[in-house]
Amino acid sequence: MPKLPNEGQCREALLARAIADAIRQYLAQVDYANIPVGVSVRHIHLSKEDLARLFGPGYQLTPTVELMPGQYATKETLILVGPKGIIQNARVLGPPRSRTQVEISRTDGFVLGINPPVRDSGDIQGSPGLILVGPRGAVTLSEGVILASRHMHLDPQWAATLGIKDGDRVRVRTNGARPVVYENVLARVSPDFWTQMHVDTDEANAAGLSSGDQVKFL
Amino acid sequence: MPKLPNEGQCREALLARAIADAIRQYLAQVDYANIPVGVSVRHIHLSKEDLARLFGPGYQLTPTVELMPGQYATKETLILVGPKGIIQNARVLGPPRSRTQVEISRTDGFVLGINPPVRDSGDIQGSPGLILVGPRGAVTLSEGVILASRHMHLDPQWAATLGIKDGDRVRVRTNGARPVVYENVLARVSPDFWTQMHVDTDEANAAGLSSGDQVKFL
Repeated sequence: MPKLPNEGQCREALLARAIADAIRQYLAQVDYANIPVGVSVRHIHLSKEDLARLFGPGYQLTPTVELMPGQYATKETLILVGPKGIIQNARVLGPPRSRTQVEISRTDGFVLGINPPVRDSGDIQGSPGLILVGPRGAVTLSEGVILASRHMHLDPQWAATLGIKDGDRVRVRTNGARPVVYENVLARVSPDFWTQMHVDTDEANAAGLSSGDQVKFL
Repeated sequence: MPKLPNEGQCREALLARAIADAIRQYLAQVDYANIPVGVSVRHIHLSKEDLARLFGPGYQLTPTVELMPGQYATKETLILVGPKGIIQNARVLGPPRSRTQVEISRTDGFVLGINPPVRDSGDIQGSPGLILVGPRGAVTLSEGVILASRHMHLDPQWAATLGIKDGDRVRVRTNGARPVVYENVLARVSPDFWTQMHVDTDEANAAGLSSGDQVKFL
């Protein structure tokens, strides 16, 4: 029969376990409080109709990088034409959506000569349009160009650890070269999400952030 | 002998004065807590030697707009040439300084192919260089390109009203379309300053700010 530990050894083991648990909890907390950043460069979501007009009937997008489950960058790009200038090589994202939407930065807006509002994705009513030029045709949008409102995607487990519910507004501090605090950041929770805070290139450049950096949940 | 006001009239007058004082105080408070924003677009401070090399011996800059007492924009511009791209029409500011310094945005850095550090003005050691091209010559800088650290200029009366001393670090919230909080903003106090918070174009575009907007002192 193996020798049982004495009382002192038991106490030591329990203490060691308590310390290990505390460290594990602490580390888990630190991890979850730091949200990875994804920088959204200008991009286009196309409707099926506009995809056909720009790339030809029956054209299929070619996925390259998965950005979120079921959402991907493609090898396809378009030329954006505004009243004051053009931007080449603007990336098309997939899959196609019900309506065409173009997300640019305010800096891009100055180049193109348009002044889009800050909006959540999908909310394009009354936004300015522009001309999209592809290899097989051009499309004139009367609206659909926005500056994407910064927001946070959370998977349900991550959100639960932080005590965040879908639709909550949260506060975060960036950790780049020029830290800023964002207040009122919309948190969206879904099993279809990877946990990531999305900012545009102006926000990233202002804060000195790159994709893979982190913002700290306050 | 003029008729003295009766007690009721006196009370009314005193009340009116108290209300007027309260409104004045309130307005003064609101004014001073709101700092006007100046957006710094990319620009160049030239040494006298580099001014002569780029524009010719004995050349004098032509002031256009006074930016701070004794500091001005000029009609002169230069071409910035980096390893990956060029930027035309970069504004020269005056008067000349002891060393040439180029202040750009991180967005400009991507266009040019250089990655300057965030620095206070004058602190250029170890920063990247670039090539300046003017109408009469070119200058190759081995260093001198920075992203200007955001900061606040305060005239002494304004600073005293807010209880701020030269060198203090302050917190402000922007009031643009995408408000952010800046912490640790260096406050500089001098009779040579107009009260203004300086941000670069990336910071302005990220926060939806334009010159003349305000940040609120927290």
